[in-house]
Amino acid sequence: MRKLAVAAAAALLLASTSAAAQSLEAGAAQVRDGALNDLTAWTVLESLTTEVGPRLVGSPAMDRAREWGVDTLKRLGFENVHVEGFTTPAWSRGAESAEVLGPVPHALHILGLGNSSPTPKGGLEAEIALFPTYQALLDAPEGSLKGKIAVVTQKMTRTQDGSGYGAINAQRTSGPAEAAKRGAIAYLTRSLSTDDTRLPHAGGARAGGIPAAALSTPDAELLDHLVARGKPVVVRLSMASKLNPKAQAYNVVGEIRGSERPDEVIVVGGHLDSWDPGTGAIDDAAGVAIQTAAAKLAAGQRPKRTIRVVMFGSEEQGGSSGAYLAAHKDETGKMVAAGESDGGAGRIWSINLPTGSAAHPAMKAFAASVAPLKAIVTRSPPREGGADISGLIAAGVPFVDFNQDMSRYFDLHHSADDTLDKVDPAELAQNVAVWASFIFTVANSDIDFRALAKDPAK
Amino acid sequence: MRKLAVAAAAALLLASTSAAAQSLEAGAAQVRDGALNDLTAWTVLESLTTEVGPRLVGSPAMDRAREWGVDTLKRLGFENVHVEGFTTPAWSRGAESAEVLGPVPHALHILGLGNSSPTPKGGLEAEIALFPTYQALLDAPEGSLKGKIAVVTQKMTRTQDGSGYGAINAQRTSGPAEAAKRGAIAYLTRSLSTDDTRLPHAGGARAGGIPAAALSTPDAELLDHLVARGKPVVVRLSMASKLNPKAQAYNVVGEIRGSERPDEVIVVGGHLDSWDPGTGAIDDAAGVAIQTAAAKLAAGQRPKRTIRVVMFGSEEQGGSSGAYLAAHKDETGKMVAAGESDGGAGRIWSINLPTGSAAHPAMKAFAASVAPLKAIVTRSPPREGGADISGLIAAGVPFVDFNQDMSRYFDLHHSADDTLDKVDPAELAQNVAVWASFIFTVANSDIDFRALAKDPAK
Repeated sequence: MRKLAVAAAAALLLASTSAAAQSLEAGAAQVRDGALNDLTAWTVLESLTTEVGPRLVGSPAMDRAREWGVDTLKRLGFENVHVEGFTTPAWSRGAESAEVLGPVPHALHILGLGNSSPTPKGGLEAEIALFPTYQALLDAPEGSLKGKIAVVTQKMTRTQDGSGYGAINAQRTSGPAEAAKRGAIAYLTRSLSTDDTRLPHAGGARAGGIPAAALSTPDAELLDHLVARGKPVVVRLSMASKLNPKAQAYNVVGEIRGSERPDEVIVVGGHLDSWDPGTGAIDDAAGVAIQTAAAKLAAGQRPKRTIRVVMFGSEEQGGSSGAYLAAHKDETGKMVAAGESDGGAGRIWSINLPTGSAAHPAMKAFAASVAPLKAIVTRSPPREGGADISGLIAAGVPFVDFNQDMSRYFDLHHSADDTLDKVDPAELAQNVAVWASFIFTVANSDIDFRALAKDPAK
Repeated sequence: MRKLAVAAAAALLLASTSAAAQSLEAGAAQVRDGALNDLTAWTVLESLTTEVGPRLVGSPAMDRAREWGVDTLKRLGFENVHVEGFTTPAWSRGAESAEVLGPVPHALHILGLGNSSPTPKGGLEAEIALFPTYQALLDAPEGSLKGKIAVVTQKMTRTQDGSGYGAINAQRTSGPAEAAKRGAIAYLTRSLSTDDTRLPHAGGARAGGIPAAALSTPDAELLDHLVARGKPVVVRLSMASKLNPKAQAYNVVGEIRGSERPDEVIVVGGHLDSWDPGTGAIDDAAGVAIQTAAAKLAAGQRPKRTIRVVMFGSEEQGGSSGAYLAAHKDETGKMVAAGESDGGAGRIWSINLPTGSAAHPAMKAFAASVAPLKAIVTRSPPREGGADISGLIAAGVPFVDFNQDMSRYFDLHHSADDTLDKVDPAELAQNVAVWASFIFTVANSDIDFRALAKDPAK
């Protein structure tokens, strides 16, 4: 009898689990289908890029973006909408130009790198020392670049997962400091980019106290061709950038409170700030739009757990992750999961769920719901999460990687070409559908990712 | 006996014609294969774009280009290398900028159009009147645009034969004058372009006495989005262009003299001048490079007729065609044929030979030689020839159309993106091979295109 009772109880539990999973899967599918036909994300993205434009941290546009964020979240019915202020160093561009003076005059298309120093007024002129690879610069002895403008023209590789960027990232982020260490008075890098347009790609750097800028692809190749002639190439560079050591910045937050366990929170977000040359459409108005729309659509009827959207206020120049953690460090234990969308608007093609969770019925329900969208749940643990949730991750909050197709991302990233017209509304909707389905599933189940990380059978 | 003699003579003629044609075809094939493995065109193109750069007529760069042209032709062994000077009106760009002042501030990426007037110092500010089609502007009554900046945002269509450009060309070339007629104080047009980059595309216009500029594709679409909100959109435009009514210009000429009939001349060319934003690689350093290399390769052993290469000196702003005709009007009767390469560096995919000539053995030999290059001789007569040989065409010189794949041409044309890296050396070599084979065939036969136009059986 006892055995039978246990078996019956187990069967009942299984049936109930299975019924719950089936109900989750049906709900997730419904959320998914709703998202595929919903225009909220597109409308949010169009609004932010059109009505605010580029949003450099510390700029007046960022104040407009803060107001826009509050208005948008309220208009969409989010609760507890508020702004969390913090300060952060903020670099801003001034007038800047570069040209080859000889042996042949040529205009150069540049964008100054974040944190780089201005040139003296009137600019500086110097012979260039060109390195076809970043390693060749690193191999140059200290002092060998004295009085020179160091130039590195190594190319970035196009990859679907965006890993070509990581592989060459130091050429921009550490190049200026490495050049300065060797005596260079300025630094130019071929843009970390996969395109061939005359538009350079900006980005942050450790600038080592010298002016540093990115060249467009054709300009970098022009320097290669000029240098190949064996005559000294002299460049004039002028930059009037500024650094505000303590700019005011903001994370903008809205919630949909849970009906059963409101203190258990799933945190999702993108970043509201952008670099200045484009309108920050794919980086990262898209992420803001995707998460805002996904949270709204996932909430539908009020969810059991709380869903929180954070529009992070200083991803490009850093600061919003740390500020968010500092403001919420006592709350991280109740954060069920964190997710960030900062990979553009391309389709999600693979998903890394928190360690040990893929076999849980709730996550199987989620996986089943997004399989028709060609989004595959992998067996790999998440690796990155994102810059703005890195503080939460360090504090132990479970997180996910939703991997987007980034094949075209680095054609546009940090350049004047990062504009609304580059976003495919159908791909944007696919993103929203995947995130909405995930948020729905987590917010309406009792899945405990921390416990599963320790014991996946739990 | 008589019949037999006639038949024998006919057979002999046929055999001899056939032998001549076979010899022409073998020669053309040899020239073709040589061209496919020859780097002359690439070297010329790389040299002009690197060592001279952009070449606006009337600019100091154009003087350097003239010297470069003379040096290049001499170095390659051309004879009778000389410069033919003329004067032409030449517009030049000054500092220029545009921005949306309200309802939301946005930078606009523009390029002033050739012949447009400067703005008053300090620029002008006005509300825009936006027309989604060029026809809508034409439909606006006179006086209706008083005090406004007229904006037309109609898109160009991508086509392989480039005909999408002709279909929309008036939007740039006549738009400013039409807007001025209706009272507008300035004119902005979406670039005549098939790309989606933030780079505008320049070009000439009848400017109607007002400032006129091209917007990049994303900027035109941004104005569409702003205007859709129904509030007045105010733009500030500043342009400091200049017009030199009598700039010095040059056609640069070189020949390879014929061994048997040196006074019979085949004239081929491209244009040396360019717009200023890029380095004029596809428009038209490519054409200069293709024709210079093709003439050189076709000459091989000295040809029977004279081959002449003309680097025309003012295609973009007009003048070189008329100047060339004026200087050679007594000689046009001896010009066997004229050909121009001004469609970029894309592959030649079809060929329109002079009317009535396709069945001539020499042209059949040519067609056979280029068939392996996927260049097809059509049954259509030539239609365009090219702007720089339009004077010769009007004077009755037979001409050809070598139709290039222009699918990508209008992504780059007249923009900062017209740079060397956009040229595929293999496609460039295919162009050279087709032209070289044609030049060889004409220069080493006695084909008379004028006679064939009257009687194709001749």
